[in-house]
Amino acid sequence: MSDFRADGAAALEWAARYLEGVRQLPVLSRVEPGAVRAALPAAPPDKPEPFAAVLQDLDDVLLPGITHWNHPRFFAYFAISGSEPGILAELLAATLNVNAMLWRTSPAATELEELVLDWVAQLMGLPDGLHGHIEDTASTSTLAALAAARELRPGGVVLCSDQAHSSVEKAARILGLEARKVAVDDEFRMRPDALAEALEDAQVGAVVATVGTTSTTSVDPVPEIADLAEQAGAWLHVDAAYAGSAMICEELRWALEGCERADSVVVNPHKWLFTPVDCSCLFSRRPEVLRRAFSLVPEYLRSDEDATNLMDYGPALGRRFRALKLWAVIRCYGRSGLQERIREHVRLAQLFASWVEAEPGWEVVAPVPFSVVCFRREASDEENQAIVERANATGEVFFSPTVLRDRIVLRLAVGNLRTTAEDVERAWAVLREAAADGSSE
Amino acid sequence: MSDFRADGAAALEWAARYLEGVRQLPVLSRVEPGAVRAALPAAPPDKPEPFAAVLQDLDDVLLPGITHWNHPRFFAYFAISGSEPGILAELLAATLNVNAMLWRTSPAATELEELVLDWVAQLMGLPDGLHGHIEDTASTSTLAALAAARELRPGGVVLCSDQAHSSVEKAARILGLEARKVAVDDEFRMRPDALAEALEDAQVGAVVATVGTTSTTSVDPVPEIADLAEQAGAWLHVDAAYAGSAMICEELRWALEGCERADSVVVNPHKWLFTPVDCSCLFSRRPEVLRRAFSLVPEYLRSDEDATNLMDYGPALGRRFRALKLWAVIRCYGRSGLQERIREHVRLAQLFASWVEAEPGWEVVAPVPFSVVCFRREASDEENQAIVERANATGEVFFSPTVLRDRIVLRLAVGNLRTTAEDVERAWAVLREAAADGSSE
Repeated sequence: MSDFRADGAAALEWAARYLEGVRQLPVLSRVEPGAVRAALPAAPPDKPEPFAAVLQDLDDVLLPGITHWNHPRFFAYFAISGSEPGILAELLAATLNVNAMLWRTSPAATELEELVLDWVAQLMGLPDGLHGHIEDTASTSTLAALAAARELRPGGVVLCSDQAHSSVEKAARILGLEARKVAVDDEFRMRPDALAEALEDAQVGAVVATVGTTSTTSVDPVPEIADLAEQAGAWLHVDAAYAGSAMICEELRWALEGCERADSVVVNPHKWLFTPVDCSCLFSRRPEVLRRAFSLVPEYLRSDEDATNLMDYGPALGRRFRALKLWAVIRCYGRSGLQERIREHVRLAQLFASWVEAEPGWEVVAPVPFSVVCFRREASDEENQAIVERANATGEVFFSPTVLRDRIVLRLAVGNLRTTAEDVERAWAVLREAAADGSSE
Repeated sequence: MSDFRADGAAALEWAARYLEGVRQLPVLSRVEPGAVRAALPAAPPDKPEPFAAVLQDLDDVLLPGITHWNHPRFFAYFAISGSEPGILAELLAATLNVNAMLWRTSPAATELEELVLDWVAQLMGLPDGLHGHIEDTASTSTLAALAAARELRPGGVVLCSDQAHSSVEKAARILGLEARKVAVDDEFRMRPDALAEALEDAQVGAVVATVGTTSTTSVDPVPEIADLAEQAGAWLHVDAAYAGSAMICEELRWALEGCERADSVVVNPHKWLFTPVDCSCLFSRRPEVLRRAFSLVPEYLRSDEDATNLMDYGPALGRRFRALKLWAVIRCYGRSGLQERIREHVRLAQLFASWVEAEPGWEVVAPVPFSVVCFRREASDEENQAIVERANATGEVFFSPTVLRDRIVLRLAVGNLRTTAEDVERAWAVLREAAADGSSE
C-alpha cells in the first residue's frame, strides 16, 4: 500500500500538471499513423515494471499521440470537459470496482444511480416519475430505447430527420429495423408535414426527435412530432444528448417543450455537464417496456429483494459505478455553478457568431441556439476545407467540419470549462489567418 | 488547481485506506432497499459543495450500501480485482478524457488499444494477426460478434450450450435472432452429437462455444465444435470471458485448443486479469465483417488518414480510453506476475475442493479446471439455500449459488488478488458453521 500511496501521488501530480499545462499542447495530435505503436515494445514484459515507467511512457510516447479533448481550444465535434470532481470520482469508482448489475451487488450504486438521474431530471425540468439509468453512450441509450419500441411494434420503421445522429441508424441496423430520414426545414428542423407523410407510408415503430442536432444543434419541433407519433401509435424517443444539459438554464428550456410526452429521452452529461466519458442518461416513462426488452435472469443471477436490478434495462449485464462521477460533479458545481458555465459557453458562441457575421466574406449558416456555430468562408468547398486543415495544423485549435446542403461548413463547438473569450478570439484569428494564407497562395 | 491537488490527495488517501481496510467490512451490503437513497437529499444542491462533502457521504451513506467486490472474501459470481495500477490508470484516463472513436481523435488511444490487445493475444497464446479491440462488457463483445455473424447469414439461428452465459441469449434477442440451447455432457460441456443434430435442424448463423462457463467453468470441446461449425458454414464465437486470462499459464492452455479456428473470441481482463471494470477484449480474424456490420460514417465523422477507426467495430460511437488501464496492469505485473497470481487462485480452489471432498455430508459436483468450485451439502435445496444465506449474513463471505441439474449448488469463485489460503479456510469454516446451525435448529 505504500507503493499505492507513492504511485498514486505521482499519478495525481501527473494529472494536475496535465490540466495546468494542456493549454500549451497542440490540440490535434501530429503523429503519423503507426508511430505510437512502433515506439512501444511489441511484446508484453515478462517481469513487473514500476508504475513510474508507465508514467514515463505516458509522457514520452503517448502524449504526442493524444488529441486533447480536455484542451480549452478543442472546438471540434462536441467539445467536452472531464472536470476535477468527475476525474477524482473515477479514481474512487475504480477503487470500489463494483458491478451494479443487481441491486444486491451494490445497493448504493443502484440507488445513487436512480437518485442522481432524478436530480438530472429535476435540473432539466423533465416531468416527475421518469425512470432513469446510465448507459455508456447515447448510441447504447438509443439502442435501448428503440429495442423497447420494437417490443411494442415488431419490425416497425424508425423515423428521424436527416440531421439526426448516426447512432439512430446504427441502432436500427443492429435491431434489424429500417431507419428512414425525414426532410428538414431551412433551419435544419424536422418538417412535421414530411413526418406526417412518412408516417402514412409505413408501419412506424418509433420516431426519434432531436433536441440539439450534431451538425447545427437545431431543435426539432417536438410538440408537433409528439402529436403525430401519438396518433400513429409510435414510440417517441428524444435525442437530447448534447442540448439536454442546457435545459438547466431556464432561458434555454423552450427547447424542451413537448419532451414531457416522450417515451424516452437521452441526455449525455459527458457532453455538456462536465462529467468524464462515459455517462449517458436514459430516461423513460415506460420502464416496464425496457424491462420486457432486456430482462433475462439466469439462475446464477437470481435475487429475491424487492428492488430494481439495473441489468434489466439495457443491453449490457456488467455495469460500472458511473453514478459516482455524475453525483460528484453536480454536488461540486451545484445548480448555480452548472448554469453559470453553460451560460458562458452560450455567450462565447454568440460572440463568435457576431464576429463572423460582421466580417465581409464570411457567413453564419445556421441559427445558434446553444454553444455551436456553423459558418463558412464565402468560397469553394476546397477553400473551406483547406482553412480548417491549416487552422488545425497550427496546433492552436481543433475544428471538425460538417456538410450542410451539400456544402462544407466550418463549426465551432464550445464546451470546455477552461475555454475563455481569449480562446475564442484566438480561434477566430487563426481562422482568418488560415483564410488569408490561402488567398495569398 | 490547488483544490485539485488537495482534493486529489484526500481521494487517494480514501482509496488507500479503503484497500487496506476492506477486509474488515461486511462483504455483502446489509442495507434495506431504499435506505441509501432515503439518506441522501432528494434534490440537487443549488450551490457548490466541497469535494470533502462527497468523501464524507461516501463514508457515511454509501459505504454501508456497497457490496465489496474488491474484498478478499468475495467468492460470488466471478470474483474480480481492481488492482492498484489499473485504478490509477483510470484516474489518468479520466484526466485525458479522450474519445477514441476515430484514430485522429486520439491516435495513441487507438494504437495502444491495438497493441495491448496484441499483448493479450500473445499472453494467451492466440494466433498472430487477430484484430482486437475493447468493449465495455462481454455482453457487448458477444453482441458485436453475433452481429458480424448475421452479416454473413441473415436470420440464422444461434446455437450455444445450456451452460452458456445469458448474454448470448440477450444478444440474440437484441439482434432479432433465435438462440437455441444444446445439451451438455456429465461434465457440463456441450455435446458434439447434440450440436450436430441442432445444426441439421436449422439454418445456423453462429455457434457459441464457452471456455469457462459461468456456473462450473466447464470447457466446451472447441475442436469438435469448430469442425461442425465449419461444415455448416456458421460463425464460431468463443466466450472465454472468464477463463481466457488463465491461458497465460501454459499448464492451463489445453483449454484453448481449437480456439485458433474461431471467428471471434472474447476475453474479459476485468474478470481475471486484475483490471478494473470495464474491459472486455474482442478478438476476430474477420474484422472486415465486424466493419461491415458496424461502419457508418456521417459527414461530421469523416477522416482521411489511412488508419483504423475503432468506432467501426462495435455498437457504440463514443469510446473511452480503456486500453490505458490494461496496459498499466500488464506492465506492472508482467507475464510472470500474472501467472503467479492466477496459479495461486487455481491452487486455492483446488485446496478448497479437497476439503469439501474429504468432508462427510458434502460433495463437489463438477470438475474444477480453474478457480471455481461447485459443491453442495448432501441435503435438500432448501438447506443448501439456507446455508448460503446464513454464511452471507455473517458478513465474512459472499457466495452466489447456482442451479445444476435442477438442484441448488454452492459455488466458490476465487479471483481477488488479496485472497489468501486463510481466507479460503475461513470461508469453509463459515460454511460448515452455517450448516451446523441449520442442523441444530
